[in-house]
Amino acid sequence: MPKPPYRRVAVIGVGLIGGSVALALRQRGLAKRVIGVVRSADRVQRVLDCGVVDEATADLESACGGADLVVVTTPVDSIARMAVEAAQHAAPDALVTDGGSTKAAIVAAIDAHWPTDGDGLAFVGAHPLAGGHLSGPDAARADLFEAAVTVLTPSAATPAAALRRARQFWEGLGSTVVEMSPERHDQLVALTSHVPHVAAAAVAATTPAEALALAATGWADTTRVAAGSPELWREILLANAAPIADGLRRLGQELEAYAAALDAGDGDAIQRLLEEGRQRRDALGS
Amino acid sequence: MPKPPYRRVAVIGVGLIGGSVALALRQRGLAKRVIGVVRSADRVQRVLDCGVVDEATADLESACGGADLVVVTTPVDSIARMAVEAAQHAAPDALVTDGGSTKAAIVAAIDAHWPTDGDGLAFVGAHPLAGGHLSGPDAARADLFEAAVTVLTPSAATPAAALRRARQFWEGLGSTVVEMSPERHDQLVALTSHVPHVAAAAVAATTPAEALALAATGWADTTRVAAGSPELWREILLANAAPIADGLRRLGQELEAYAAALDAGDGDAIQRLLEEGRQRRDALGS
Repeated sequence: MPKPPYRRVAVIGVGLIGGSVALALRQRGLAKRVIGVVRSADRVQRVLDCGVVDEATADLESACGGADLVVVTTPVDSIARMAVEAAQHAAPDALVTDGGSTKAAIVAAIDAHWPTDGDGLAFVGAHPLAGGHLSGPDAARADLFEAAVTVLTPSAATPAAALRRARQFWEGLGSTVVEMSPERHDQLVALTSHVPHVAAAAVAATTPAEALALAATGWADTTRVAAGSPELWREILLANAAPIADGLRRLGQELEAYAAALDAGDGDAIQRLLEEGRQRRDALGS
Repeated sequence: MPKPPYRRVAVIGVGLIGGSVALALRQRGLAKRVIGVVRSADRVQRVLDCGVVDEATADLESACGGADLVVVTTPVDSIARMAVEAAQHAAPDALVTDGGSTKAAIVAAIDAHWPTDGDGLAFVGAHPLAGGHLSGPDAARADLFEAAVTVLTPSAATPAAALRRARQFWEGLGSTVVEMSPERHDQLVALTSHVPHVAAAAVAATTPAEALALAATGWADTTRVAAGSPELWREILLANAAPIADGLRRLGQELEAYAAALDAGDGDAIQRLLEEGRQRRDALGS
């Protein structure tokens, strides 16, 4: 049996993404030992009970000591701090990567505070486009990243060798890797993830409670992501504020175009707008 | 075996809803004979091949002759015309009902042109809140109305006996019946169905094609209904223009509230807005 590529992996933040990273590493025989780092000691047992990690602790320093791979999957507002702290304890050649759904602010903060400038220890920002309607380590799945895209967001400070290792890691979990700048990533996910999330929450909030008896599958689908955690999404939206605000105003203009066409009884204009939406929707598939 | 309650049923428009009405009537033993009325003669064979009706024809007059139940499930812009024409040929005590997703304009047009003012032959507007991502008679299901709500929208012209019969019919297909005025129905579905449809189409249209590689389940859910037929939805939106335009402008204000909070970096305001969306979403369930 070949030696696992990673000796000691620290997964900081064991929720859906972190738990799935840990499970996938273990089930694919990619890591000798996976240590989960939790927020506080009272969470250790819960994470152990989920069976996703070999070991769990609230002590980041001891978990990262000697680790050759660190994966930071905490909420976006703490990723940079955790990554820099982990780097101070990890092995000198460790790869540090993350799972944050915004990238520019995180990558810039890490570049600014990174403890070394050698070619060994390095951070490579990543965003696995995986998830679902469930959260927490109980929902973790070893196959979460299969058929998913992971975006890697190297900066000018990213060594080429580290980028290759990060690609190998995320492909090793089953995902398809694409690379782009942190800024480009944030602009695109503002439109594919953050604006749709706000739109879903806004549609839900502007539906009066007494109308819900008439809500069918269309309303349920359109608003589904609004069930996500407001605490987590607050930080995601704040970390990518300008592209999202732009996207929301562009969406507002599109809604006003419909409203104006409805005021004017202009069926052709309405159909043209609907065709544009359907074409883009059909380009994705179900 | 008890006699089926309906001798001869004409279903005008054999798509997903009409086909499912026909299938449900036959599988539940509620009709002796179900005749599907299609738009043109070249569609007869296709509908027969689906096996949802006993007979299919493009001749509305012959199909409705002697019918004691007529169900009009054509697109909303032709329902009133079809219902009035059907009434001229149906049995003198026939119940005519429909499946249109807008009601005020349809009910008013039918009331204005109804051929009799007796207590026998009568129209009762209905909107079964059933459907899905598929359309056409191939997608018809006998259980489509089970666990669905059907809204009945009586007007001042609706005889009480006809309303009872319409309730019996739609409950007989497995749905839960609620009653409200056509105007109230249209105001509520503007918010639970029409505004979400436009929002989905607008989110899809404002996502650049090059961003779709980063679209994950959130985008797919939020935009799913935008795959619906622009031709059908054009007529639905036009038939309920004012409440939808109001709802879209209210939604636009909500999006602007998020954009302003993002501009200001006001995390508390963002979280408050997200909480409102989640509360309303959670009130529905998955």
